Amino acid sequence: MEKNPVDKLISKRVGWLADGGADSGIAMSTRIRLARNIAGFPFPIQADADAAKAVAERAKGAVESSGVLKRHIAIDMENISKLDGGALMERHLVSRELLERPMGAALLLDEDETLSAMVNEEDHLRLQTICPGLRLFEAWEKINKFDDAVCQVLDIAFDPTLGFLTSCPTNLGTGMRASAMLHLPALALSGQVEKLVQGVNKLGLAVRGIFGEGSENLGNLCQISNQSTLGESEEDILRRLDAVMRQVVNHEKNARAKLLETRENFLLDSIGRAYGILKYAYSITSKEALNSLSLLRLGVDMEIIGSVDVRTVNELFVLSQPAHLMKHAGENLASEERDALRAAIIRGKLRPVS
Amino acid sequence: MEKNPVDKLISKRVGWLADGGADSGIAMSTRIRLARNIAGFPFPIQADADAAKAVAERAKGAVESSGVLKRHIAIDMENISKLDGGALMERHLVSRELLERPMGAALLLDEDETLSAMVNEEDHLRLQTICPGLRLFEAWEKINKFDDAVCQVLDIAFDPTLGFLTSCPTNLGTGMRASAMLHLPALALSGQVEKLVQGVNKLGLAVRGIFGEGSENLGNLCQISNQSTLGESEEDILRRLDAVMRQVVNHEKNARAKLLETRENFLLDSIGRAYGILKYAYSITSKEALNSLSLLRLGVDMEIIGSVDVRTVNELFVLSQPAHLMKHAGENLASEERDALRAAIIRGKLRPVS
Repeated sequence: MEKNPVDKLISKRVGWLADGGADSGIAMSTRIRLARNIAGFPFPIQADADAAKAVAERAKGAVESSGVLKRHIAIDMENISKLDGGALMERHLVSRELLERPMGAALLLDEDETLSAMVNEEDHLRLQTICPGLRLFEAWEKINKFDDAVCQVLDIAFDPTLGFLTSCPTNLGTGMRASAMLHLPALALSGQVEKLVQGVNKLGLAVRGIFGEGSENLGNLCQISNQSTLGESEEDILRRLDAVMRQVVNHEKNARAKLLETRENFLLDSIGRAYGILKYAYSITSKEALNSLSLLRLGVDMEIIGSVDVRTVNELFVLSQPAHLMKHAGENLASEERDALRAAIIRGKLRPVS
Repeated sequence: MEKNPVDKLISKRVGWLADGGADSGIAMSTRIRLARNIAGFPFPIQADADAAKAVAERAKGAVESSGVLKRHIAIDMENISKLDGGALMERHLVSRELLERPMGAALLLDEDETLSAMVNEEDHLRLQTICPGLRLFEAWEKINKFDDAVCQVLDIAFDPTLGFLTSCPTNLGTGMRASAMLHLPALALSGQVEKLVQGVNKLGLAVRGIFGEGSENLGNLCQISNQSTLGESEEDILRRLDAVMRQVVNHEKNARAKLLETRENFLLDSIGRAYGILKYAYSITSKEALNSLSLLRLGVDMEIIGSVDVRTVNELFVLSQPAHLMKHAGENLASEERDALRAAIIRGKLRPVS
């Protein structure tokens, strides 16, 4: 029997959580996804089993023949456990929607997780790239090449006036959703997040929690993305996004400097307590872990905590999530057992600091 | 100019917080005080300046001539600062009432703080002994000798039927209040304190917080003492108290064993978090410090935390209190400054644990 491909993925660090250059302490990652559909087939929500199967075959064939995914992994959603699905979602490789599709849903991805395609999600194809740091244009170049290579062998549903046709009208036009995951602990500590969200919303951009729409602002992480896909070129959308995100990154930088200057003891206290709890707790919820890891990461970024490696913190952000914990344990765990295991893993990975 | 006697006291560890034998992890200290009045003088609350002065002279003279206090220190309350008064109160050597007396109030004590006398508090003389652990009969022997030596040169207000006459009728008879300070973190962690207090009250004994009547149950410390002073001999009262206190100590021991057996992870988590916060916080209130020190002390007592010395924890219980902090700083501090200094002192004294 072949090794479970999810096990193989889980055993590695998340590729795009590597060090991402200058602003990676604040801009953790950039993500772009493109929604594409094959002409002549119903959208997944209306498709019967035959149609879903035909779409899956064509979509998979196109991704494979494109040759863009160097170490190609294909995972049919029908064949994986709920737990494996949860782990893929925690790595931002699949959506809840894909996991819930009854027919023909699949994930195709490169082993380093930077390029992937969801098949038969809301649209026939959702192409995605993730890279570390704030690199919208680099990501755009990458996904654009992937898109060209995949779509050249498919008859893509496209209207000369409207652009790409999509299952949901909110994706019509470019079919593009570009986002960055920003880590904003200093803005959170100084109570400025709500104001920031309002400001970004006014600019026509969306702000979401770590797991998309409706999710809580856990770990002081938020995703900023474009709302509209119609009436602007991809490049125009990305330029606008990039300008706003760089502003937000600067806000966070200023908030950090201001905290250090005017409220140093409060800053040290917040970071110290987070470290103390992570290093010595024997039970910690996912929420408390993410929020404490966020403050620890702030301490590392600001060189207040020297002996902890930033990659260890990033790794713990992923490892401390429920499905990853249960994959680690090799079994389903009750909430209390997860909290104990999470605390044990974190204690084990953190080095003493002075 | 002579050195401030309070400075001298503060610079030493509290004598009776030394290791107190087998049960000292739970019974921190034993205290007995005797209320005595000199016949022919009004009680302090009704005394004018001349009467207060005459009582103070006689009381001081009697304590001095008794020769019981080996390294005798005398402190007139009129001559000390509010801050010094607060520090003496934190060491359980004076009451708030003594500090607030307008005339002739004084504290006489042995340098090791185990024997002392308040002059012109509610009564003319309040003789006190404190010793580590649960040692009611040893304490009784000590205070009894002190009482005999002091009172033999005074004409003490005594009624053959009622016993010693006191300012407040609740002290009439023996004039004795005996108490033990018990540290009950496991009962607190398992939510059994309220039930215990009710049970002890039903037996006619009082349960109070660390600073007497009306004070909060800080640091999981409580004082159990006799309510009645009339109709029973001192020895009978002490035997009854001793039996109840030994039962409470056993309850706490059982609660510790049960936590370790049935809720080990919860126990380790509570102790670990307390240590983590004490070791890494940069701002901590008196309340949080006492409650965390209590759990740390539990960890040391149960040999869960090996590298922290129990005397260090006991010392921090005293040092982390407001007046001691300000004496340490040499100036009055705002609440926020105290919280920062308290955290700094605790961080400095705690050794890393693994």
